Formats: sequence, structure tokens, C-alpha cells
Amino acid sequence: MRAPVAGYEARVRSNFAKQPLMATIGAQLTRVAPGAVEIRLPFRADLTQQHGYLHAGTIAAVADSACGYAALSVMPPDADVLSIEFKVNMLSPARGDALVARADVIRAGRTIVVCRADVYAIADGDEKLVAAMQGTMMVSRQ
Amino acid sequence: MRAPVAGYEARVRSNFAKQPLMATIGAQLTRVAPGAVEIRLPFRADLTQQHGYLHAGTIAAVADSACGYAALSVMPPDADVLSIEFKVNMLSPARGDALVARADVIRAGRTIVVCRADVYAIADGDEKLVAAMQGTMMVSRQ
Amino acid sequence: MRAPVAGYEARVRSNFAKQPLMATIGAQLTRVAPGAVEIRLPFRADLTQQHGYLHAGTIAAVADSACGYAALSVMPPDADVLSIEFKVNMLSPARGDALVARADVIRAGRTIVVCRADVYAIADGDEKLVAAMQGTMMVSRQ
Amino acid sequence: MRAPVAGYEARVRSNFAKQPLMATIGAQLTRVAPGAVEIRLPFRADLTQQHGYLHAGTIAAVADSACGYAALSVMPPDADVLSIEFKVNMLSPARGDALVARADVIRAGRTIVVCRADVYAIADGDEKLVAAMQGTMMVSRQ
Repeated sequence: MRAPVAGYEARVRSNFAKQPLMATIGAQLTRVAPGAVEIRLPFRADLTQQHGYLHAGTIAAVADSACGYAALSVMPPDADVLSIEFKVNMLSPARGDALVARADVIRAGRTIVVCRADVYAIADGDEKLVAAMQGTMMVSRQ
Repeated sequence: MRAPVAGYEARVRSNFAKQPLMATIGAQLTRVAPGAVEIRLPFRADLTQQHGYLHAGTIAAVADSACGYAALSVMPPDADVLSIEFKVNMLSPARGDALVARADVIRAGRTIVVCRADVYAIADGDEKLVAAMQGTMMVSRQ
Repeated sequence: MRAPVAGYEARVRSNFAKQPLMATIGAQLTRVAPGAVEIRLPFRADLTQQHGYLHAGTIAAVADSACGYAALSVMPPDADVLSIEFKVNMLSPARGDALVARADVIRAGRTIVVCRADVYAIADGDEKLVAAMQGTMMVSRQ
Repeated sequence: MRAPVAGYEARVRSNFAKQPLMATIGAQLTRVAPGAVEIRLPFRADLTQQHGYLHAGTIAAVADSACGYAALSVMPPDADVLSIEFKVNMLSPARGDALVARADVIRAGRTIVVCRADVYAIADGDEKLVAAMQGTMMVSRQ
């Protein structure tokens, strides 16, 4: 567990509220800790692919935002964070009641922050790993 | 240019019509050729991140579908295609009038198909490269 | 911890001994468990890049082999495993006395196995995370 | 074709000569143009995996160096370039007389440069695409 940067949670929550896509798909910020963020997405049929599973783009959106906010949570107050790239493996069909993406910072440098996210599908209270992301965020000072 | 598989365009168009996410975000299938597919997404503010640019998840959704359909276009009629993983670099802010993702098959094996997609933002008729994807699709026989 | 497949360790060790590159760079298989493999590489100046750190290709070689053998360790005796793709982040300069790559299977399907590897540089007994890989292996039956 | 930065070729060649790994594996810098670099690796059995094909780590080493030098070739004289991450797909077995990696800059920013490399195996004068890389380089001013 990292030492928290003052005001990190308010900054993450405020920034999340400014991402229209998260509202559009119904994603919720369910946990903010220093270097670790969880986003939850209730299942919606209009976010799926041809087999009725959540689309890889939906999964990527949630996991990427979780990574970005995990990175933001360890940055100083004047910093902003942008995704420069990510890679995601789809491990199992993403179906059930909800999707939960849990992201962790694995390396926070001055300019580059690297995160991993594990994405779970929740069905009847059970969690199953359905995707795994590793991504790179760039820090900019405003 | 590859030799076309009979009925490839109808199969791609029919499958695309079954992806609810594509309709939800307003994406259109604008070109289908053997091994090459283009998807266009008119800009919408509800698909953006905190700076008003299209969210990386939106970009990934469009590019991943383009890759998947490029792969499907070269497969035999009984095959289905699933994304097993992709990597995407965000190169420039994705803003303007529309996004266009152009995917090409770079290697089609029996089980694995690898594609690349270049994603452009279109503003006032000019195109700018804003993202680049490389991804892996798995073929399943139904 | 997974239930071990009979003979997994002998198969992994025998296969590792058949990878000429591992001998060429001096890599050693230091741990084999079901779904988890560790490879150690003593530092050598002839494996470095222009600043005297281990080259990203050297790091990738060790991490990729660790992922491949982690995958092989959970497969039935008649299976072989090939890397189809991986992604690796270089997190810090790789210098010190040795490099250690620890790979874990995060999803083992019938055809596709996904692994992650964490790569540490060891200097004076301390470990520092220097690279992180996520990769996809394909299983073939012989 | 980009406008060349003065002295780019000498800087790339001089830097390449300082990468011990390239000498260790026998790689040669066969082409340097603004934003485009080619590295050739004569086949050697001691760089292979268990089936006698070039190891994915060998392929990654050559492709990553090609990407790094493609990036360096478009940077100002006081800049240095480090790989922060790459992703590589292995498309076909890498065997034959030699491997050739051709890297191109697809986006050069002030801090981040993104490259792609196509890797070919050459056998009896024929080229076959065997791997594809997409990677991210970070620019540092010395």
C-alpha cells in the first residue's frame, strides 16, 4: 500500500465524473485507494457483441479507465494522466450480472506509469476472471 | 488483394448487424473487401473522456470490430472469429467529425488470424492517424 | 496452486534443455511448479544495450521462455506450446547481478494459455521489478 | 519520406555499434533512412528454440532495436531513445538463411515515438513475414 497523496480520492472521483463515456455505459467508480481503482459495470445488452457477451471494446473501456485512475491516484495534484497504449487479453466470455475491473499501478515513474487490470464477470455472486490488461499511462503537468 | 471467399461481404455485414455495441455507439460498416474492413464512427460527445476526445475504449471498440471483420472476411463460411487479444497505441487526440478504423489481415492461419488497424480522425475532410492496433483473432468452426 | 499434471517438471526441464538460446545467454531454469516457472539469467555485458543495461530483447527472451514453460507445465503430456504473441513493458534499467523472470498462468484453455511474467533485477540480494510481460501461448497436440 | 535530421545516419550507426547484444547475436544494420531502419540477422542455430526456429526473444531483440533506431533517426542530435514497451506477434516459424526486421516510425511526438516493425525470414531469396511488432519509445534529452 502506497502512502496516499493528499486529496487523491476527490481528484479521481471528480475526474471520473467528467468522462462522458463512463456515464453512457453506466460504469461506476466503486473503489479508490492509492494506486488501486475498481470500476463496476452492470451488464447491459446494448454493450455486447454478436454472441451476447460484453464487447471487447466495452471491456477495454472499463479496464482502461480503471488503469488511468489508478495512475492518477498516485500523481501529484497538478498532474494529468493519459493512456498512451494498452494490451488486453480476453480470457472468457464476459457475461453475467456485472463486470468489475480492478487496476493496480505496478510502476510509477515521473513521466510514465504502468498499470495492470484484472477484469471479472460477476454472476450470482461468483467472480470469474474474463480479461487482463497491461497498459502505459503518460503523466502531463498542467 | 486476396481471392474472395464466396459470400464474404454478406456474412460480414450480417454479423456486424448483430453487434449491439456498434449500433449503440453509432458505428457504420463503410467498406468490406477480402481481408480489409473499414468502420466509421461519427463523433459523439457521449463517447468521450475527460478532455472531450473520444475515449480509448471507444477507439478500441471500433478498431477491434474492424479487425474481427477483416479476419472474418477471409474465413470459410462455417467459421466464426473471436478477439483473443489486442494492443492499441493512442497517437493523437481523437477529435473531429468522425473516426475511421481501417483493418487489414496480416496473417491468416487455420486457427489464428492477426490483423492491424489504423484509426484516423477526420476533421474538415482531412485525415489524421490517431491510433494503431495490432490484434489476434481466433477462428472457431461452428 | 493447481493440481499437478503427472511428469510436468521432467517435461519442462527436458524441453528447456532443448532451447539453444537459453544456453547461449546462460539462462537457468530455477523453479518449476504447476503453472509457475522461474528462469534466472546471470548478468552478462554481452547481452546489453547502449547504456550497459540488459537489452529489451534479452529480457523478452527470458520472460517469454518463462511464460512458455509455465503454460507447458499445466498441459497434458502430448501437448506442445508455442508463443503466439507477447507484450512487455520495461519499467526500470535492468542491471545488477542477475535477472529473474517469474511467470504464472492466468488462464489455461484448451487451445490458448495466457501468462504473465514479472521480471526482477537482483543486486546485492535486493530485487527490483524491471519488466512486466503478458503473453499468449497456443497449445498444439503432437 | 521525412526530411532528414542532419547527421541522423552517423548517430544511428554509432549507437548501434554500442549495443553489445547486436554483436553477440551477429545482427547487422543494413539500412538507415529517416524514420525507417532495417536490421539483418543471419540465421544461427544457437539463437533458436526447441524446434530449431529462431526464438521469440531473438526476433524481439532484432525488431526492438530496429524500432529504437527508426525512432532515433528522426530525433534531434541531443536526444536518446529508450524502449518503454512493445508487443510482437509471431506469425510463422522463423527459419531460413536470415531474418530481416524493417521498422518504421508511425508517430513521432516530442516525448513518445511509436513504431511498427515487420520481420521477414529469408530463404533462397524469398521473403516471408514471420513476425510483427508495435512498440513505444520514449525520448530523453541528454
